[in-house]
Amino acid sequence: MEKTKIGVVGLGGRGFGLTKVVAAMEDVEIVAVCDVYEDRVRRTVGGVREIAGYEPRGLTNHHDLLNIDEIKGVLVPTSWISHIPVALDCMRAGKLSASEVGGAYAVDDCWELIRTYEATHTPAMLLENCNYGRDELMVLNMVRKGIFGEVVHCQGGYRHDLRFGLAHNREPDREMRHYRQAEYLYRNCDNYPTHDLGPIAKILDINRGNRMLTLTSTASCARGLHDHIARTDGPEYPLANRTWNQGDIVTTVIKCANGETISLVLDTTLPRPYSRNFQVHGTRAVFTEDNHSLFIEGEADHEKPWKEYWGNVESYYEKYDHPIWKGYDPNKGGHGGMDYLVLRGFIDAVRQGSEPPIDVYDMAAWMSVTPLSEESIALGGHPVAVPDFTRGKWFRKREVYHGEYEL
Amino acid sequence: MEKTKIGVVGLGGRGFGLTKVVAAMEDVEIVAVCDVYEDRVRRTVGGVREIAGYEPRGLTNHHDLLNIDEIKGVLVPTSWISHIPVALDCMRAGKLSASEVGGAYAVDDCWELIRTYEATHTPAMLLENCNYGRDELMVLNMVRKGIFGEVVHCQGGYRHDLRFGLAHNREPDREMRHYRQAEYLYRNCDNYPTHDLGPIAKILDINRGNRMLTLTSTASCARGLHDHIARTDGPEYPLANRTWNQGDIVTTVIKCANGETISLVLDTTLPRPYSRNFQVHGTRAVFTEDNHSLFIEGEADHEKPWKEYWGNVESYYEKYDHPIWKGYDPNKGGHGGMDYLVLRGFIDAVRQGSEPPIDVYDMAAWMSVTPLSEESIALGGHPVAVPDFTRGKWFRKREVYHGEYEL
Repeated sequence: MEKTKIGVVGLGGRGFGLTKVVAAMEDVEIVAVCDVYEDRVRRTVGGVREIAGYEPRGLTNHHDLLNIDEIKGVLVPTSWISHIPVALDCMRAGKLSASEVGGAYAVDDCWELIRTYEATHTPAMLLENCNYGRDELMVLNMVRKGIFGEVVHCQGGYRHDLRFGLAHNREPDREMRHYRQAEYLYRNCDNYPTHDLGPIAKILDINRGNRMLTLTSTASCARGLHDHIARTDGPEYPLANRTWNQGDIVTTVIKCANGETISLVLDTTLPRPYSRNFQVHGTRAVFTEDNHSLFIEGEADHEKPWKEYWGNVESYYEKYDHPIWKGYDPNKGGHGGMDYLVLRGFIDAVRQGSEPPIDVYDMAAWMSVTPLSEESIALGGHPVAVPDFTRGKWFRKREVYHGEYEL
Repeated sequence: MEKTKIGVVGLGGRGFGLTKVVAAMEDVEIVAVCDVYEDRVRRTVGGVREIAGYEPRGLTNHHDLLNIDEIKGVLVPTSWISHIPVALDCMRAGKLSASEVGGAYAVDDCWELIRTYEATHTPAMLLENCNYGRDELMVLNMVRKGIFGEVVHCQGGYRHDLRFGLAHNREPDREMRHYRQAEYLYRNCDNYPTHDLGPIAKILDINRGNRMLTLTSTASCARGLHDHIARTDGPEYPLANRTWNQGDIVTTVIKCANGETISLVLDTTLPRPYSRNFQVHGTRAVFTEDNHSLFIEGEADHEKPWKEYWGNVESYYEKYDHPIWKGYDPNKGGHGGMDYLVLRGFIDAVRQGSEPPIDVYDMAAWMSVTPLSEESIALGGHPVAVPDFTRGKWFRKREVYHGEYEL
């Protein structure tokens, strides 16, 4: 079997981790890896050697990597601000890219993805691993089978206590170059919407018979990082008296063309357990991640306390797991198996020369939520329009699903 | 001990239930009861006789009740649209009223409450039982003790599957005159915000050092009632082909003067277990109702899965119960004991001639969320301003708490 030849641009913690997962795939060859920091390049070359027995080329300029003809696909786990520029360079070089997640900085950057795709006919993928979560895929499967009736509302969140990392990335012995600190000092928006929005967008057929029309976004005050630093680092710490522009909680409400609403929360600077706050509400069932329960009309009794249904999702896997998860071993790689699956989705698209499961229209729409939420917050919660990046194709060509394995 | 003499206006299911709780209080005498339907009056007079051994006067015009001099307080569990008009009549008659909950229909109705209070100096109370919920009061107590650090975000909801009642109040054998059906046919708003907003407003010191500044509100499409009726009643049912204006899910986001945000959800026409979705997020702790967990920094570990904390609220009652709940027997009356407590709050204010624990400024602010959400939804999610019903007093005279028993 011929190996699928790929390159990797961006070799920080995440890039190194993803590279190791791919290096273990027997049908893939990592031809070259690239980062602006040479120590990262050396570490990654060594990591691939250990796992796969060969050394990829180590580069510090991604244009050199894109000039290697045999490379057909490029993983792009760079810093947030480089995701779109590198994806554009990949399209121009005729190579399928898979960008790690994060929001955009300007809506025009999202349009540039579309314009470049339309000019080059080279697809690009967003590497949204949460679209491959077991629960997210099971609910997608159940929605397609009609178990939820008509879905009218979804909720999601990126609720992850990041205070320590955000406050301490200047420690010289920590590998946190390019990390998120400046985002929190300067911006105020939902800076990381796709973990929660991605799976919901697939459930609501966004860009395939539906689209996001408008959103409003509201940020709370910013108190979490200041309070954390005051207690853990004291008043002499360089960041102790900085003002953080990023509100602790950002709530974004999206209205869709077919009437559904989506509510998203960014919640990364307060103490809490991790949650993506995934909720799907239909006319016949509701799923909630936070107490891991499924409530299906006819099977459950709404007069009983909810507590009786906590944790019952486990009992539905056998019947409703998405085909992608049937028999899958989640120990295969990263974040409960999601990383392996999203990487396989990418590798398979490279091998087949097909459109990736999360395409450039998904990428543009999902990433645009960040600058749009920034606008709405700045305008005091004013609704802002979400562009139709498909230019009218969302209700024409894009509504057909091709098979049960599809996202 | 002299008995506190009260009247009751509005004797539907809720009015009958509240009257029975009050009839059992040994220090209260129900002097008169009133409803426009005589069958209800007869039922309630008989109910009081059975419980308390005396018969109150039965009336069909509330002005007759207000003309009875010995009556000092009036319970007002009328239909939604009568709450404010009857409360105004009570103020003009110099009697402390306690109105059952619901939203207002016009912001000016809320102003009329304020104007009438300022002219008559007669207080009025909103009978929000959920302010007396054990969890809500415990969290309030913990917030005042500083356990949450600074609170920056709260969530709440009225998530209650009301489809059967909404679809079937025309059945001739059902006691549902004045029920909510027409609200769902004609309006589109958060029609019932105070169960969730009330406890949050106390936690955030609304009207006592803080206030709500603006809100945005977004409604989903309306599918739940139509789908329910089609399945349970078939196409011949009179409501089978009616259009319901009320969206299934309404999400309202409120921004407060001190920077906090509040997110509310109305969710009453889809299948689900009951929840008020109570969440309080501070810089040092988070409370969530749906999995009944408290996560306090220093005691809990955010690297552990949330599941380990599900249901742990029980273990905090002994240490943090609000003084009102210490040693309280929740079997004393209605909705887990909340009804008894809110009625005691009212009776005590009548007896003492004091301001009630939920006053006319609270009532105006909380009830105004309904017409404001209606405006914002009609304007496509445009932010609307919440009036300052205190006319500037919120950051002057009203920030002082008088005792640990206070709401």
